[in-house]
Amino acid sequence: MSDVREVSPEQQTVEQTLVDTVVASFDACEDPRLKEVMGSLTRHLHAFIRDVRLTEDEWSAAIAFLTAAGHITDDVRQEFILLSDTLGASMQTININNQAYADATEATVFGPFFVEDSPAIEPGGDMAFGAPGEPCWVTGTVTSTDGEPLVGAKIEVWEADEDGLYDVQRDAGARAARAHLFTDAEGGYRFWGLTPTPYPIPDDGPVGKMLAAVGRSPLRASHLHFMVTHEGCRTLVTHIFPEGDPIGWKDTVFGVKESLIKKFERQAAGTPTPDGRVVDGTWSEVRFDIVLAPSGV
Amino acid sequence: MSDVREVSPEQQTVEQTLVDTVVASFDACEDPRLKEVMGSLTRHLHAFIRDVRLTEDEWSAAIAFLTAAGHITDDVRQEFILLSDTLGASMQTININNQAYADATEATVFGPFFVEDSPAIEPGGDMAFGAPGEPCWVTGTVTSTDGEPLVGAKIEVWEADEDGLYDVQRDAGARAARAHLFTDAEGGYRFWGLTPTPYPIPDDGPVGKMLAAVGRSPLRASHLHFMVTHEGCRTLVTHIFPEGDPIGWKDTVFGVKESLIKKFERQAAGTPTPDGRVVDGTWSEVRFDIVLAPSGV
Ligand SMILES: [Fe+2]
Ligand SMILES: [Fe+2]
Repeated sequence: MSDVREVSPEQQTVEQTLVDTVVASFDACEDPRLKEVMGSLTRHLHAFIRDVRLTEDEWSAAIAFLTAAGHITDDVRQEFILLSDTLGASMQTININNQAYADATEATVFGPFFVEDSPAIEPGGDMAFGAPGEPCWVTGTVTSTDGEPLVGAKIEVWEADEDGLYDVQRDAGARAARAHLFTDAEGGYRFWGLTPTPYPIPDDGPVGKMLAAVGRSPLRASHLHFMVTHEGCRTLVTHIFPEGDPIGWKDTVFGVKESLIKKFERQAAGTPTPDGRVVDGTWSEVRFDIVLAPSGV
Repeated sequence: MSDVREVSPEQQTVEQTLVDTVVASFDACEDPRLKEVMGSLTRHLHAFIRDVRLTEDEWSAAIAFLTAAGHITDDVRQEFILLSDTLGASMQTININNQAYADATEATVFGPFFVEDSPAIEPGGDMAFGAPGEPCWVTGTVTSTDGEPLVGAKIEVWEADEDGLYDVQRDAGARAARAHLFTDAEGGYRFWGLTPTPYPIPDDGPVGKMLAAVGRSPLRASHLHFMVTHEGCRTLVTHIFPEGDPIGWKDTVFGVKESLIKKFERQAAGTPTPDGRVVDGTWSEVRFDIVLAPSGV
């Protein structure tokens, strides 16, 4: 309750009685978890309404916002996930379900652009598949928290191209700047990707209007997505972020973590590449050593 | 934070830092009220997620629920209002914006079935316009909190018929069981309506599924809607509820208030009516004296 507004004890009683009545309406729920979640949702929702002394016009604006978000949402556009992302609710859920464990690599948001059927590449292969952008040589290892190399770990990688677009935003059936590969007998991996660049989340809907109204940018920090799976290990969904990124900590979905910021070393045009590939122009290089937590933690 | 779950101090710091970062993202907002509302929304939303330790599956279920609510919502069906109603959020907003004032009549939820262009009736007229149900003779006065009669106060009344349907649910253009009239030179009013009966809120969408999952009924307590306006007075949006109603306090939108429960006296078939109308069967009678608060309170 905001302490600058006077709310009489009688009025407090009216409001608290309603909260208690709504919470009690879930008493007959036979699923104890659902009962807990609905009770907590009710308490926090009412605390918000009472805290800000929500006006009837603001309540109407909230209904209109949710309606517009529902109407713009379809098979390829998910405004409610954007809303959750931009309020940090997605990242908080990730934090809670992927708690820091020893020196395991930290998780971040999954995002809406993963697809199941990415193409396979061999070690050292190119996941760009022609997507425009500066080539980036990515190498590292996958180990357990005991330091054991994890052989045959599956690594899914995906990213936006230099125009800030994922393949599926250009054409739902296209597959570019995404691939999967497996770690070698030493737990190592290497591939060619693209140096990540910032891109805006889709901002032509109600979430974009909200960001504009509060003076926030729709831009995400530059990043390269990873999902790494290995038997006996907690699946890791994360990104790496280039050091010195113009957006960086201002990431509009709050996905940046200190431990996930990596140095992408830019190489002058003509610098020989590690595998002899001939690159027309600059390229970059980054190392990302991945540590998977045991499953069940 | 639920005290049965252990959350390490390091993890608490990670989670609280995220909350603080999201709240700070609204710092540049030039509208101080919007900044306050978004900051409070963020704090309460994150408190909910942390309190229940929301799982990733539950987060996905919430996104799917909101998506389904958005898709069933159209010009004549508003699932987000149903959600707000069934979580008591609508009633809490009413409570906050229509605080009890002296002995003024209390407000309750507006509901989704008001229309602007109700037919006018004369004093003693019949607002049923053929809608099925037991006739009910409704009388009362409209006064200020000083006890002064309010002459020419506009009274809008609307209700469901005995099948539990509003006119607009049968046909968007139909007008029945709704009307407006004005108080007479003594501030009095009288009209024929229908004895209210319980009806379910539309329960074939995600809100209906939620109510079923938690073991709640979709039924509203029987009620007759009033909206009363007079210059210099706070507009009153309210209902009256019959004493002894089978739903009563279990009203699924939490609209019932003690002061709004009225005795509807049932009259045996053949009992003469106050205005000589010949009724085929039973009828009922109720008195509702309305007191309007001054405007601006
Ligand atoms: Fe992304
Ligand atoms: Fe109603």
